[in-house]
Amino acid sequence: MIHADQMSASQIRELIRKQEITGPTAGMANGFAQANLVVLKKDCAFDFLLFCQRNPKPCPLLDVTDPGCFHPKKIAEKADIRKDLPKYRIYKEGIFTEETTDITEYWENDMVAFLLGCSFTFETALLANGLPVRHIEEHKNVPMYKTNVSCEKAGIFDGPMVVSMRPMLPKEAIRATQITTRFPAVHGAPIQIGEPGQIGITDLSEPDFGEAVTIREGEVPVFWACGVTPQAVALQSKPPLMITHAPGHMFISDIRDEDLSVL
Amino acid sequence: MIHADQMSASQIRELIRKQEITGPTAGMANGFAQANLVVLKKDCAFDFLLFCQRNPKPCPLLDVTDPGCFHPKKIAEKADIRKDLPKYRIYKEGIFTEETTDITEYWENDMVAFLLGCSFTFETALLANGLPVRHIEEHKNVPMYKTNVSCEKAGIFDGPMVVSMRPMLPKEAIRATQITTRFPAVHGAPIQIGEPGQIGITDLSEPDFGEAVTIREGEVPVFWACGVTPQAVALQSKPPLMITHAPGHMFISDIRDEDLSVL
Repeated sequence: MIHADQMSASQIRELIRKQEITGPTAGMANGFAQANLVVLKKDCAFDFLLFCQRNPKPCPLLDVTDPGCFHPKKIAEKADIRKDLPKYRIYKEGIFTEETTDITEYWENDMVAFLLGCSFTFETALLANGLPVRHIEEHKNVPMYKTNVSCEKAGIFDGPMVVSMRPMLPKEAIRATQITTRFPAVHGAPIQIGEPGQIGITDLSEPDFGEAVTIREGEVPVFWACGVTPQAVALQSKPPLMITHAPGHMFISDIRDEDLSVL
Repeated sequence: MIHADQMSASQIRELIRKQEITGPTAGMANGFAQANLVVLKKDCAFDFLLFCQRNPKPCPLLDVTDPGCFHPKKIAEKADIRKDLPKYRIYKEGIFTEETTDITEYWENDMVAFLLGCSFTFETALLANGLPVRHIEEHKNVPMYKTNVSCEKAGIFDGPMVVSMRPMLPKEAIRATQITTRFPAVHGAPIQIGEPGQIGITDLSEPDFGEAVTIREGEVPVFWACGVTPQAVALQSKPPLMITHAPGHMFISDIRDEDLSVL
């Protein structure tokens, strides 16, 4: 039997669709880009698309489906967005109501699915360059912080940018900046290095989401715009119905991480 | 008196608003990014925004206004999109009806303005690197060709990609690829080098838009996705009302060409 990391994206999606895989997708289908999911009804979709267009660093769009269409044609044309993620969360009026493995019963003809780039892609590139990714070393969820940096508002969507943090030595931070610059479709270069106070973060040991990680002697915190931002902002606006992936239970696309690099 | 190339973007826009400048904007406010304009009513705007999101090389969005708002807040917050371009074109049901210097009388509360990156930005970078830009040398409009490369459809918007062509030596084409890779927000790297037949172009001496330029001994044609694409595609769908800049009469933004580079 081949391991999940060596399978293709479509093989993994088939196992997910059969509900033989229902757990987190980290490390699966190595080399294929994974994506965050946000599903909204058409009447919110223009505002959300505009929000993502205005805030490309936290909200890097990989694909947006036609209203009612559940195939993400650009990144996995045969996939079914209603069944091919291992776990979903349903929110009504901004309140989390249920976790489910299939959203077919919730799907309506005016729904639009947004697939957003995920930091797994650039972490693969960081690791390939021998840079530390502390939360992976420590088997934790990445630490994430709300900042005082406002996103650019669009219609009903408004809120602060959320960032993820990876500690590293200053020379590693420079290399990490070069590497992630290649990937504007998955958050791109860091937004801040070394001065959390300047973006409104007062205590690195108390992240707003995820878990704190060890910052070693000589290391500086490096902050990237985080894909939690669009979900957090969308929830604040309390849409009647919103569906997302459950944390860590991502959509695995047919495009390769390297296809998302600009050079 | 200072020359137009040395003025700031806002100084030029003021002269345009007073109708003291009504001609093409090439070379004005040197260093500031210029943009293509497409104005559509809200009921077409979601489809058009989706079309641009799906086709970022021909349709690189720099800014999209809130419905009814005529200030492009991201790239020139004090500008008025209705008056600050030297010349506009009005299209009704896809038919060109009028050229005008002010669109205030056409403006409606549900209109959305799309500002799209313009190749002037990357041509400045090519020239700064000593690369040839033949149509500038020959005082012509850049040659543009319809290709057999389909854009990705979005709602009512569908059609082929239009490309612009600049001939250069192979080693210059490599350097030009590196330079324009830095500017994904203004068409990015070329889509083709040296083989026009592969993208459905049969005769370089007969461009579909603009004018043919000299291809010298040893030079190859280098093709970039062109900002004429979204206008051409939008017109094909015959929207009830569409307003664009007149060719060459661009919007001059407050952001600098270099702000549009990713590295």
